[in-house]
Amino acid sequence: MKDREASLSMMKTMKNLAELAELVGGRLIGDGSVTVEGLADLESAGAAQLTFLTHEKNIDLLSHSQAAAAVVPISDRQYALPVIQVRDPNLAAAIIHNSLLAGPFQAQGVDPRAVVGQDCQIPAAVTIAPLAVLGKGVVLGQRVTLGPGVVVGDGVRIGDDSTLKANVTVERGTVIGCRVMIHAGAVIGSDGFGYATDQFGHHVKRPQVGVVQIDDDVEIGSNVCIDRATFGKTWVKRGAKIDNQVQIAHNVVIGEDSIIVAQVGISGSTTLGTGVVLGGQAGVAGHLTIGDRAMAAAKTGIHADVPAKAVVSGFPAISHPLWLRISSLIAKLPDLFKDVRELKKQVAELNRK
Amino acid sequence: MKDREASLSMMKTMKNLAELAELVGGRLIGDGSVTVEGLADLESAGAAQLTFLTHEKNIDLLSHSQAAAAVVPISDRQYALPVIQVRDPNLAAAIIHNSLLAGPFQAQGVDPRAVVGQDCQIPAAVTIAPLAVLGKGVVLGQRVTLGPGVVVGDGVRIGDDSTLKANVTVERGTVIGCRVMIHAGAVIGSDGFGYATDQFGHHVKRPQVGVVQIDDDVEIGSNVCIDRATFGKTWVKRGAKIDNQVQIAHNVVIGEDSIIVAQVGISGSTTLGTGVVLGGQAGVAGHLTIGDRAMAAAKTGIHADVPAKAVVSGFPAISHPLWLRISSLIAKLPDLFKDVRELKKQVAELNRK
Amino acid sequence: MKDREASLSMMKTMKNLAELAELVGGRLIGDGSVTVEGLADLESAGAAQLTFLTHEKNIDLLSHSQAAAAVVPISDRQYALPVIQVRDPNLAAAIIHNSLLAGPFQAQGVDPRAVVGQDCQIPAAVTIAPLAVLGKGVVLGQRVTLGPGVVVGDGVRIGDDSTLKANVTVERGTVIGCRVMIHAGAVIGSDGFGYATDQFGHHVKRPQVGVVQIDDDVEIGSNVCIDRATFGKTWVKRGAKIDNQVQIAHNVVIGEDSIIVAQVGISGSTTLGTGVVLGGQAGVAGHLTIGDRAMAAAKTGIHADVPAKAVVSGFPAISHPLWLRISSLIAKLPDLFKDVRELKKQVAELNRK
Repeated sequence: MKDREASLSMMKTMKNLAELAELVGGRLIGDGSVTVEGLADLESAGAAQLTFLTHEKNIDLLSHSQAAAAVVPISDRQYALPVIQVRDPNLAAAIIHNSLLAGPFQAQGVDPRAVVGQDCQIPAAVTIAPLAVLGKGVVLGQRVTLGPGVVVGDGVRIGDDSTLKANVTVERGTVIGCRVMIHAGAVIGSDGFGYATDQFGHHVKRPQVGVVQIDDDVEIGSNVCIDRATFGKTWVKRGAKIDNQVQIAHNVVIGEDSIIVAQVGISGSTTLGTGVVLGGQAGVAGHLTIGDRAMAAAKTGIHADVPAKAVVSGFPAISHPLWLRISSLIAKLPDLFKDVRELKKQVAELNRK
Repeated sequence: MKDREASLSMMKTMKNLAELAELVGGRLIGDGSVTVEGLADLESAGAAQLTFLTHEKNIDLLSHSQAAAAVVPISDRQYALPVIQVRDPNLAAAIIHNSLLAGPFQAQGVDPRAVVGQDCQIPAAVTIAPLAVLGKGVVLGQRVTLGPGVVVGDGVRIGDDSTLKANVTVERGTVIGCRVMIHAGAVIGSDGFGYATDQFGHHVKRPQVGVVQIDDDVEIGSNVCIDRATFGKTWVKRGAKIDNQVQIAHNVVIGEDSIIVAQVGISGSTTLGTGVVLGGQAGVAGHLTIGDRAMAAAKTGIHADVPAKAVVSGFPAISHPLWLRISSLIAKLPDLFKDVRELKKQVAELNRK
Repeated sequence: MKDREASLSMMKTMKNLAELAELVGGRLIGDGSVTVEGLADLESAGAAQLTFLTHEKNIDLLSHSQAAAAVVPISDRQYALPVIQVRDPNLAAAIIHNSLLAGPFQAQGVDPRAVVGQDCQIPAAVTIAPLAVLGKGVVLGQRVTLGPGVVVGDGVRIGDDSTLKANVTVERGTVIGCRVMIHAGAVIGSDGFGYATDQFGHHVKRPQVGVVQIDDDVEIGSNVCIDRATFGKTWVKRGAKIDNQVQIAHNVVIGEDSIIVAQVGISGSTTLGTGVVLGGQAGVAGHLTIGDRAMAAAKTGIHADVPAKAVVSGFPAISHPLWLRISSLIAKLPDLFKDVRELKKQVAELNRK
């Protein structure tokens, strides 16, 4: 498998430990001229690779690792291989790994089998795959990559260095920032789900004439759906990260640096603050405000506003510590019911006396 | 942003207030010759647009609106601008907005880069986008629109005025009615999920040889999945509206005018009556009957039949008022456990005396 | 409808009852030379078809069926039509139905409108639909079928007799076994969802450099997402069956013959044993181990390891029998609270005396 992966990885860059230590502001212990050409975990790192230690409990894995060097936490521990000591090895490993994988953008231009509508603005330095389809008046930034089967509607704007993977659909009027990554099968800008109901119980569609705006550095997972606004815009702000199969309804605002885990659903006109974290399969009702840095555990069902920094769980959502306590009490309900039956008997007996 | 949206909106129609009042059976107060060319909400409506007031609490927004006129509830209130009084401003606004956006169908024909199989019946007045793929024997009605990347299997029939957005997949044999809208990435007619298990624990696929039938005026959201029947048909009846990422299993029947909110899952052979509403992320087990106009709150887990007009919540689903009461009691469980501990102590003391 | 279905079914094979009884190791009662050309359920089977009886309660449907013959459970019952008696009519019907539908693979070769990258290995006996897109170095087995709009990334390998339906995306480096079926819109090999967070609260992407491996005889539903591993591989083992809209995160392992029902989400690095069953909308947290043949009911939220053969429900997951008992107790909480209030009053009264 390793050979395979190696052959697939085209843009391999070699860097030496001194450079990498400087990149992450770490303290180098050992030979700074040692070069590495990749990063891997403790089990799989090869002799030309860097590895990283996040938990002291894995120290044995490190001592058996074939890696050339390691990123490690700050401590007095001695290592048999060169190390870069940092406060947060996870973060440093991510930064180093990105730097080792980075290479110059290789523009392949617009494939002749792509379909490009009238009045598009497309710089030379882009990669538009075969069978991508662009509508009219699409404006692309520098170094944009559109995969096969991507469909971009009329008037869409996509900023520099953004990538849309295969079979992504972006409906007309959507505005996408720079360094945005959208994974395969995502649908951005479908109609919001809104109807008015007449006296016969038939649903009359409320036209959805707003747009979707995705700001810089957002990542959007596979098969995610983000609906256009009824009026105005649905808005995903800078740096938000959205996992697969998330559903974001019309007029929702996702705050900067928020983390939305897989299969979350957020109903219309709800606003998330900065740095909000929603666990997998959580659901948020419409027209709510979730405060900055609030967190919801997986499967939480949120029906009311959540204050900043609150941590909530359960359905309906309550504070996480209370939820933990209640969850353990619920498991004891059979005993409680028995106790109460017994008490009723004894009290009846006492009353009789 | 407003200029952008304006330029994207090709089919702008101007109508005067007298026409619009008649369209919705409303009472016009003011100059019926005033024309509007669009509809927007209270905050964003421009000087050439109509707006609408749904809640009296928003009356201040209306007084600051730049709109040319407004749709308002019936009352004795005086307005500074021309108004159309109606019983249901939401409904009237939807009807008016649709009428302002409506234009003649602009047939673009079959793009030469589309792929059309043998023996298809395709009228002249259709729009088949580049890179749509039709199998053999597909029959399209008048004014059908198929977006880029749409794949339509052998023998599929699609009725007049239906639209399939980009990258929709419709598997062979599916029957789709008139005025149906299917949003990007939806998959109609995949195999149902059915297996028989042999003595080794291996699962033998049960062939899924039925079809999917979608009746008139149905709307289906992005990345929805509707599976074909094992035998017979999976059936979505007239006027049902289905939000994004809903999963509808084999042999399910969705009743007329039902509303299925995002991320709902409905298991095999379950039947929903007319006008059923399922909230987001609700789940329904298989082989159940959900009565006419029954409603389930978001995240409800339904394991048993639900009678007509019932409103249910929770998991397992119980009546919504009971669920509300129980949810508030659950938050008080720590107090209850403490009370019972205290009672046991006191009763033991009383018994000792 | 029946005519329609008949005309769509190209590979109709006729077999006689003697052959079919032998195929499933059943006991034939009646004329073994009777031939059937299809299988249908009790209500819809026609005069040239076989039907099957799974529950004695449906015996009336069988007596009114037009079927030529039936697969039935072993019993002393007399039937008016020829029957094949078997231990498990469901399983026998599945085996027979597959055999009646099976036909020789009809290779249509590589459509000239498909896009094939450099250095691909593609045997003659394949069907690559128009507008399928293959990257570089793709290796296909015998009798592979790729539908329209399928996108296969660089270096992907797909084994014999596997089928990818329309608009499936398989990212670079994915390894797919033999007889694998992937339904429309599924995305295999997107980046896992992993970030490290810096001191400003910005999320730094952790490169996802592993792959996905799908073993033989796996079936994957529509719009499923299976993410590539951070390092190493995400792995779906032989015979696992995955329903629509399931989310499988990086480095998950799905054991052989497991059944994952629609809309389940499995978080990173969790391992499922052999024959695990997860009900619809269940969620599993990361880094857990679910033992062989464990089962989770629909909507279960699993936050801890589950031992082999355990059956769990609820959120947080507990044993299914306990969950059933607790669910019924929860509905009685209003009474319990009333009882405790009454007890407190009586005990206070007793104390006063």
